[in-house]
Amino acid sequence: MTKDELLKQVCKAVKNVREQNPLAPSITNSVTINFVANAQLAVGGSAAMVYLPDEGEFLATISKSFYINVGTLLPIYEESLPRTCKMLHEKGCQWVLDPVGIGIGELRTKLILQMKEYKPAVIRGNASEIIAVAKLWGLADCDEVNEKSKGARGVDSTDEVEDAKKAAKAIAVYTGGAVAISGKNDLVTDGKMCVICYGGSVFLPMITGAGCSLGGVVSIYCTVSNPFIAALTATIMYNEAGKIAERKSVGPGTFQARFLDELYLLKEKNILKTRIEIEE
Amino acid sequence: MTKDELLKQVCKAVKNVREQNPLAPSITNSVTINFVANAQLAVGGSAAMVYLPDEGEFLATISKSFYINVGTLLPIYEESLPRTCKMLHEKGCQWVLDPVGIGIGELRTKLILQMKEYKPAVIRGNASEIIAVAKLWGLADCDEVNEKSKGARGVDSTDEVEDAKKAAKAIAVYTGGAVAISGKNDLVTDGKMCVICYGGSVFLPMITGAGCSLGGVVSIYCTVSNPFIAALTATIMYNEAGKIAERKSVGPGTFQARFLDELYLLKEKNILKTRIEIEE
Amino acid sequence: MTKDELLKQVCKAVKNVREQNPLAPSITNSVTINFVANAQLAVGGSAAMVYLPDEGEFLATISKSFYINVGTLLPIYEESLPRTCKMLHEKGCQWVLDPVGIGIGELRTKLILQMKEYKPAVIRGNASEIIAVAKLWGLADCDEVNEKSKGARGVDSTDEVEDAKKAAKAIAVYTGGAVAISGKNDLVTDGKMCVICYGGSVFLPMITGAGCSLGGVVSIYCTVSNPFIAALTATIMYNEAGKIAERKSVGPGTFQARFLDELYLLKEKNILKTRIEIEE
Repeated sequence: MTKDELLKQVCKAVKNVREQNPLAPSITNSVTINFVANAQLAVGGSAAMVYLPDEGEFLATISKSFYINVGTLLPIYEESLPRTCKMLHEKGCQWVLDPVGIGIGELRTKLILQMKEYKPAVIRGNASEIIAVAKLWGLADCDEVNEKSKGARGVDSTDEVEDAKKAAKAIAVYTGGAVAISGKNDLVTDGKMCVICYGGSVFLPMITGAGCSLGGVVSIYCTVSNPFIAALTATIMYNEAGKIAERKSVGPGTFQARFLDELYLLKEKNILKTRIEIEE
Repeated sequence: MTKDELLKQVCKAVKNVREQNPLAPSITNSVTINFVANAQLAVGGSAAMVYLPDEGEFLATISKSFYINVGTLLPIYEESLPRTCKMLHEKGCQWVLDPVGIGIGELRTKLILQMKEYKPAVIRGNASEIIAVAKLWGLADCDEVNEKSKGARGVDSTDEVEDAKKAAKAIAVYTGGAVAISGKNDLVTDGKMCVICYGGSVFLPMITGAGCSLGGVVSIYCTVSNPFIAALTATIMYNEAGKIAERKSVGPGTFQARFLDELYLLKEKNILKTRIEIEE
Repeated sequence: MTKDELLKQVCKAVKNVREQNPLAPSITNSVTINFVANAQLAVGGSAAMVYLPDEGEFLATISKSFYINVGTLLPIYEESLPRTCKMLHEKGCQWVLDPVGIGIGELRTKLILQMKEYKPAVIRGNASEIIAVAKLWGLADCDEVNEKSKGARGVDSTDEVEDAKKAAKAIAVYTGGAVAISGKNDLVTDGKMCVICYGGSVFLPMITGAGCSLGGVVSIYCTVSNPFIAALTATIMYNEAGKIAERKSVGPGTFQARFLDELYLLKEKNILKTRIEIEE
């Protein structure tokens, strides 16, 4: 696929979401839950967040897409996440996994391990998180990946996006979906094609939930396109909205408000001008 | 009561809250909990949020008003909500119910059913939620309401405010309090009088928690006036602050900040100019 | 120590955090969790929030500092907080306690009582909270303190900063750390020296989480300096950023965004001009 063809599909996804106001429910962390919902609304989607097992299952049955973020686990998640993911898988609902903080605590590891069989349509994370998922799922050449990865620090990446490419491709091949790595430049892959996306803002890493909300927005675009285009669309929206919002801000506080504005306002012409590079 | 008489009472409630800084504690959902608190503070009130049963009971005994929102249930809510609502009822503390997501999951249905006997002073919701409460509590002509309601989608309404008027009146007659329906235009009723309120902003449905925070602000006004005037005051504040904030914003992000500003700044003259229609 | 010497250390702490991007994880309340994280990021730190016992323990072992805020307790906190605090104490990790809502509910009292032996490096609270901790821990002349304190109302102080000075000193002497009292003017003490800090904004008490986020920021500065300087640095940052942000805002909504901007932008020259008074 050419760059122009890709960007046309991205524009179509943006337009369709703005017209259809699709719902993508979430089980997500409490730090950034408000920002995830507001970003989903800003791009034209609808949000609904729950914690309980039967509520997750119910929303899985009525939705085309779902967002799961393991950032702040509660005890009930031991039930809620496997039951919801199982239902999502059975119903063919496309779901997005954000493996925030992978490596912290026993339950997190156990849950992400269980999720392997329920194949998320998109996994979004920073480089360290994507490498950690590939390792945990036994998908990458672990020796090589081990050697390269410096591991996460809390919820921050210590690895570069490029170092996680192999892990990302392995995951996407396994799930049949896509993987999006956030970093200075971003990488989106469906296991074959890799798209490097440029743009964004120095302020994005300075607002909590930039990554989580990107995941939530990917899940919104999953309602109108395939996982790869959905991940690419959200990534490009973030890069272009981030670039414009930075010019209109003096710090991370005003940036956050402006960024939501630009997600809402972003025009097709900005999307068509975005800088991406395709590696087959 | 004439429009002028009503608006004078609204102005008095606004003024009293700004002077008295009254506390209205909450058990509310984690998506919008921050925005609820900030809106309560912006109008001049004070906020305190808890999750545990004995904490809810304790705050029920020291407060004039309380806000309960069932948006994101946790397992402990099975105890916290009935115990808190019982205490609120016994102590004659006026409480506001926001039946967010009614219909999702077993616990939510069970809890809202239990709340019937503890008679919330105000129920605030969108049209689908108000219809669903009336049905669940056996208060409306179910056949007619069933026929009309398309049901909620996640946390969004699929029904029009006008379609929920009968349900709202039936609830208010039962509780002896008031019901506020949020929508394009809003409706506030005490079971007899219905007031249609105009204004607001296209951005209000684009920020998560516009409805929840309205409920939280109703509970603040319940500390200084009766349920009907409290619901009306909060609704008018939202409509007028929303209108002004929209003129000063370019998108939902800057709108959210500006909206809190305008709740804080709104003047009596704006309230007196608000457009409402009274139906007896 | 002279005022100039103190402020030089404050400037050094600010600079070091901006250069080192240190992590201070939290177990904190869900009302203000997003604002805590954003404030920690704005000053140059990194945030990670968890709820589960083994996750708290794990982060305690990999971090130099930790923030604990008891604002919205969940049942699991009965395990999470003692286990995390024990680990923090054993590993010599400096931790900051925010005793929000002390006096509400049984679990809160029990947990704060348990924390006594794990000696937080800094306790930050309003006057009523600091007095309540001193009483609960049996550290102050209870009769005198009892007489003076009017007690908290929900999460608000009803006491003046000056009235809590004795309690603050007693706590700092016991812990060997520092205590910071937030109010119209703020007080920071290491048990011997008391520094009164001026500045801030009328809007700070109108945004939820002004205090919580201050505690989170204290914990960031604890990674690069001793508890007293850390508490002083965060307090001065808040006073100066608050002052500037207020001039650029029209209400609490825009203030909140501007305030984060100013935390990020604040210059050494502003810190050196801040008004403080030292009492030995």
